[in-house]
Amino acid sequence: MKKILIIGIGAGDPKYLTVQAIEALNAADVFFVMDKGAAKDKLVALRKEICARFIKDHDYRIVEATSPERRRDEGLDYKAAVDELNRDKQRVFERLIEEELTDGQCGAFLVWGDPSLYDSTIRILDAILADGRLAFDFEVIPGISSMQALAAKHRVPLNFIGKPVSITTGRRLAESGFPQDVESTVVMLDAQNAYTQLAGEDLDIYWGAYVGTPDEILMSGRLQDVKDEIVRVRAQAREANGWIMDTYLLRKRGVKD
Amino acid sequence: MKKILIIGIGAGDPKYLTVQAIEALNAADVFFVMDKGAAKDKLVALRKEICARFIKDHDYRIVEATSPERRRDEGLDYKAAVDELNRDKQRVFERLIEEELTDGQCGAFLVWGDPSLYDSTIRILDAILADGRLAFDFEVIPGISSMQALAAKHRVPLNFIGKPVSITTGRRLAESGFPQDVESTVVMLDAQNAYTQLAGEDLDIYWGAYVGTPDEILMSGRLQDVKDEIVRVRAQAREANGWIMDTYLLRKRGVKD
Repeated sequence: MKKILIIGIGAGDPKYLTVQAIEALNAADVFFVMDKGAAKDKLVALRKEICARFIKDHDYRIVEATSPERRRDEGLDYKAAVDELNRDKQRVFERLIEEELTDGQCGAFLVWGDPSLYDSTIRILDAILADGRLAFDFEVIPGISSMQALAAKHRVPLNFIGKPVSITTGRRLAESGFPQDVESTVVMLDAQNAYTQLAGEDLDIYWGAYVGTPDEILMSGRLQDVKDEIVRVRAQAREANGWIMDTYLLRKRGVKD
Repeated sequence: MKKILIIGIGAGDPKYLTVQAIEALNAADVFFVMDKGAAKDKLVALRKEICARFIKDHDYRIVEATSPERRRDEGLDYKAAVDELNRDKQRVFERLIEEELTDGQCGAFLVWGDPSLYDSTIRILDAILADGRLAFDFEVIPGISSMQALAAKHRVPLNFIGKPVSITTGRRLAESGFPQDVESTVVMLDAQNAYTQLAGEDLDIYWGAYVGTPDEILMSGRLQDVKDEIVRVRAQAREANGWIMDTYLLRKRGVKD
């Protein structure tokens, strides 16, 4: 039987690795490294650094594969594009598991943040198993997500006392506004500064880019006061680095906590 | 200047500790250990085990303090009771920081799960600083939350593709039903089997108790099929252990993912 480990490596800082993740790194024979776009070199380098730093007296191979990219055609539905992307990824993953692992070996995917939040690796392995052509066992190792790193750096709780929190995407925030029935929401995957559309609401924002890395930028304040500065800093950082990964927490002001 | 570390120690399994948390443990002179109720002995023992296992060649003291308990009087508003509890805790924390730490020393609170989710330590330290009687610096170290451990053990993503997730409490779920505008919700702090009230909706449940500990129990399935069994197993486990800590994910069935 082949074994696959989906290892959450946390949000940037190698110190976010857990003891469990380090043990998993040391159990794997082959690492599948897939990234894409402008962030590729940096993210691949980070994974290699993590392997080099934490794997002791144990031989391993790194197999780099080109990750398919999501089509961004005008008018193409987001869900349809992600479905197509995941089918493409599934073919790549199947080939890696079939050709790069022998029976009894252990392969690992290193996932940025936590594998259970806005990552498709679990979903794709389930789809491969459901197809029935390959058999393997797999295990998921949780990691520190960017929203946890963000909250820790800002030293702010995600929830008000006894209140719910929502986790949503920039796309969804732009479409539907501040989520109903909650006083705080974490926004991930925002490529379009969706927070600027909420400037009419009385919100605090806790924003961070490249959280946990040496390039980390943190900003916070009343949304209407700081939003233009965040737009400016974000554009500048994206220009300077060639890519950006940012996350933010929005909280209603005036909630008694 | 005194320094306080709020260290997320993850959801039960000592292997959930991060490298950052282990470094923080090794930087602290004094650990403040506060728990309450039936789970106290087990949780205090777990913290001591974590200190003993991960702290190397470094003297430290453990100061146990009795944690105030939330009043559970009939008719007393939950928020008012938590406010009162947090004021009581603030007095205890102030005394600990004032009397148990000398200038230049580092004290640490070990927080179960992640300090940014349903934990009041950040809030209480902010309140002490706002009062202005004591001065200290503090830092927050994120930890693996029970919802992440739950998702990893069930090998299930928390979100559907591109969709939001809500994190809520059992109390809120019982009051307001399944959250609006989401297809999946994580429920924490449920003392009353609130999921049984949603049996008319077509949901899957991924349930876990004592996740990450040797007593871990996992159950999942269509809510209406498994809810009675979860109620039974939960009551039995609570009876056997004297306490229970459980979490679950509810997801709408039939969402195309």
